Amino acid sequence: MKAIVVIGDGMADRPIKELNGKTPLEAAKKPTLDWIAENGICGIMDPIAPGIPPGSDAATLVLLGYDALKVYCGRGALEAIGSGIDIIPDDVAFRCNFATVDKNLTVVDRRAGRIETKDASRLAQRFKKINLEEDLGVEITFANTVQHRAILRLRGPRLSMMVTDSDPQKVGKPVLRVSPIDGTFEAERTADIVNKLTQHFHQVLKKDPINAERARKGLPPANFVLCRGAGKLPDVIPLSLQYGIRAAAVGAMPLVKGVCKVAGMKILDVSGATGTYDTDVVAKARAVVQAVKSHDFVLVHVKAIDVASHDGNAEKKVMMIEKVDKMVSNIVKSVELDETLIAVTADHTTSLLTKDHEGDPVPVAICGPGIRVDDVKEFGERACAKGGLGRIRSVDFMPIIMNLLGKTRKFGA
Amino acid sequence: MKAIVVIGDGMADRPIKELNGKTPLEAAKKPTLDWIAENGICGIMDPIAPGIPPGSDAATLVLLGYDALKVYCGRGALEAIGSGIDIIPDDVAFRCNFATVDKNLTVVDRRAGRIETKDASRLAQRFKKINLEEDLGVEITFANTVQHRAILRLRGPRLSMMVTDSDPQKVGKPVLRVSPIDGTFEAERTADIVNKLTQHFHQVLKKDPINAERARKGLPPANFVLCRGAGKLPDVIPLSLQYGIRAAAVGAMPLVKGVCKVAGMKILDVSGATGTYDTDVVAKARAVVQAVKSHDFVLVHVKAIDVASHDGNAEKKVMMIEKVDKMVSNIVKSVELDETLIAVTADHTTSLLTKDHEGDPVPVAICGPGIRVDDVKEFGERACAKGGLGRIRSVDFMPIIMNLLGKTRKFGA
Repeated sequence: MKAIVVIGDGMADRPIKELNGKTPLEAAKKPTLDWIAENGICGIMDPIAPGIPPGSDAATLVLLGYDALKVYCGRGALEAIGSGIDIIPDDVAFRCNFATVDKNLTVVDRRAGRIETKDASRLAQRFKKINLEEDLGVEITFANTVQHRAILRLRGPRLSMMVTDSDPQKVGKPVLRVSPIDGTFEAERTADIVNKLTQHFHQVLKKDPINAERARKGLPPANFVLCRGAGKLPDVIPLSLQYGIRAAAVGAMPLVKGVCKVAGMKILDVSGATGTYDTDVVAKARAVVQAVKSHDFVLVHVKAIDVASHDGNAEKKVMMIEKVDKMVSNIVKSVELDETLIAVTADHTTSLLTKDHEGDPVPVAICGPGIRVDDVKEFGERACAKGGLGRIRSVDFMPIIMNLLGKTRKFGA
Repeated sequence: MKAIVVIGDGMADRPIKELNGKTPLEAAKKPTLDWIAENGICGIMDPIAPGIPPGSDAATLVLLGYDALKVYCGRGALEAIGSGIDIIPDDVAFRCNFATVDKNLTVVDRRAGRIETKDASRLAQRFKKINLEEDLGVEITFANTVQHRAILRLRGPRLSMMVTDSDPQKVGKPVLRVSPIDGTFEAERTADIVNKLTQHFHQVLKKDPINAERARKGLPPANFVLCRGAGKLPDVIPLSLQYGIRAAAVGAMPLVKGVCKVAGMKILDVSGATGTYDTDVVAKARAVVQAVKSHDFVLVHVKAIDVASHDGNAEKKVMMIEKVDKMVSNIVKSVELDETLIAVTADHTTSLLTKDHEGDPVPVAICGPGIRVDDVKEFGERACAKGGLGRIRSVDFMPIIMNLLGKTRKFGA
């Protein structure tokens, strides 16, 4: 028995007038998702707890069975791992942006005009010459990923993730001083290191010929590195050890890849999986069908539904749900249904109206051999609420799947 | 967006023969509560945990989102605050009764013939002359509230709420010696202080001319002060800090007012809100409609449903539910439904048969913008059990409301 889990990022929503009082899931044509609901067991799940909106990091951790309330250690390290930067326990990593600030260190553009990757990469190279490691007593790695995005990794003794962001998250606001959140020496030291580094980066960037060139072209200079989301490696047991399974993940987002890597899953990069509306769901389906041949558990994550939600674009959200349906249809047609569980859910609710993550529960449906099929015939927030799974927490999802695969350990004797 | 929460005290019940196998909620004519169920999302909630009957104090704490299992600190301090007696951290407060005891200190009347407030007040004045504070090393405040009811507040170092009651709760039983519940010095000391004080109060009361006068009139003397419910201030975060809201409460009961004050809510006293069958629900509705103009969250509590339950009076319980319906009808007619959530629930189940709080879940319905409206069309224990909220805990109610108002904080990033 194998399991395939399909996660629609931010796919759950609330009923809206624009869709005649339906949610995007309820409005979309999604015969395959409905087929899974009809032939499976359904329910609703609270990602963290009723009413609590989850961040994407916490929401992905719980779907793999990790209690985010216990293991959550910030986003930075997960994002770093997902971007291919290795992280060992005690490293502290930050998500960074090349940004544009004015003379008073007020943020003018948080993304430095979405600077191209090749330029950002050249700027990141400059920092290699910075010789502060001895002074600061820490090993420093700075790596750009895509466009303005980058990772700062600190490695060494006595570091802490309990520090605030320098990124004010809004244009027109001054760059923030990184401060310790708790009163430990480690937090003081880490804040001090980041502040000094940031200052140094600024000095280097200001004088860089790439920025002179950008100025000539009328582009905003990448003259500052904003840091946010300090994080460490969460202390989790890999799925292989926990359940004795081989697990793989198909998805484009560094964060999701990071969480899956931490869980010991194999990451399958799919050409054409972009995390945007044009993502190639046919290619993703193909990758899943291939992966399930040599893995017990395959997770496939589709980001762009959440993008549409954050954009408040109902039409695009419905369209993306229909694309996910097509992907799942291709998967269903190509796997042995007698020996495959297929589950569909969302990591969290993202409201088209508030354009943000909300704390409403998400629908879930699981079909396959041995399932106590219920009466639900449609995959939607309200239809699934009547299902046989009742209302559970997302952290319970993985043990339920693993139990159906015969992979959970008995408690007691 | 605003939220109005209606709490029917002890409103949930079990089916009874007298009501043809219906519960009082099912038997009552309550078109407005049914309208809320029909246009909202419904569910059932366990106040503490399945099967555990909650006290009124714990049941009110959880409805405001506080985990009673963690923060509960007895009833005394909450009752004191609700009666207008200020309580600071480390104060220990008791609920007290003027009572009648015989020569052997056996309780003859727990309420001293429900002594009138003016007489009780004069007796309470006598204690001001007691000069034991220096001896006992503690500041003593004794204040009568209504009729036989009073509050004893101890303030000073090394006090504990871990002491038993002197009130045996039953006529014909001897007054109990207050004892430490744990082995701490603080509990020993507090028990000793209360025992000495009680003894002293008894000496003062025995000789008081008011009691001589009562004897002449054939009334039972108020010759003893019974203490129960030692409590401290629960360590809770005010709603304003937790959610950034302005919150107000409309209700007559000192305990509920106390819990709401501790939560940092504004207490709105309504002339005509009596906590008894004759309570003026029209005036309460008016106060709610007024309050919601300047507050984000308004709670209105109706006590007398519980009174009917404790009296085992089904007719009165149904009548009071119908009065609550009228109150909610007046509210619904007068607020902007496009920008107001309205929720109805009970703090606990009180059984007309057992005349006591029971551990059955309570129904809940929430209507307003953005709600995933379900198929439930009636507000009742069994109808709501089929609703889209499923079975949750009362402590989750507040985060769910706050999520709908956009006031909960994200967990993770």
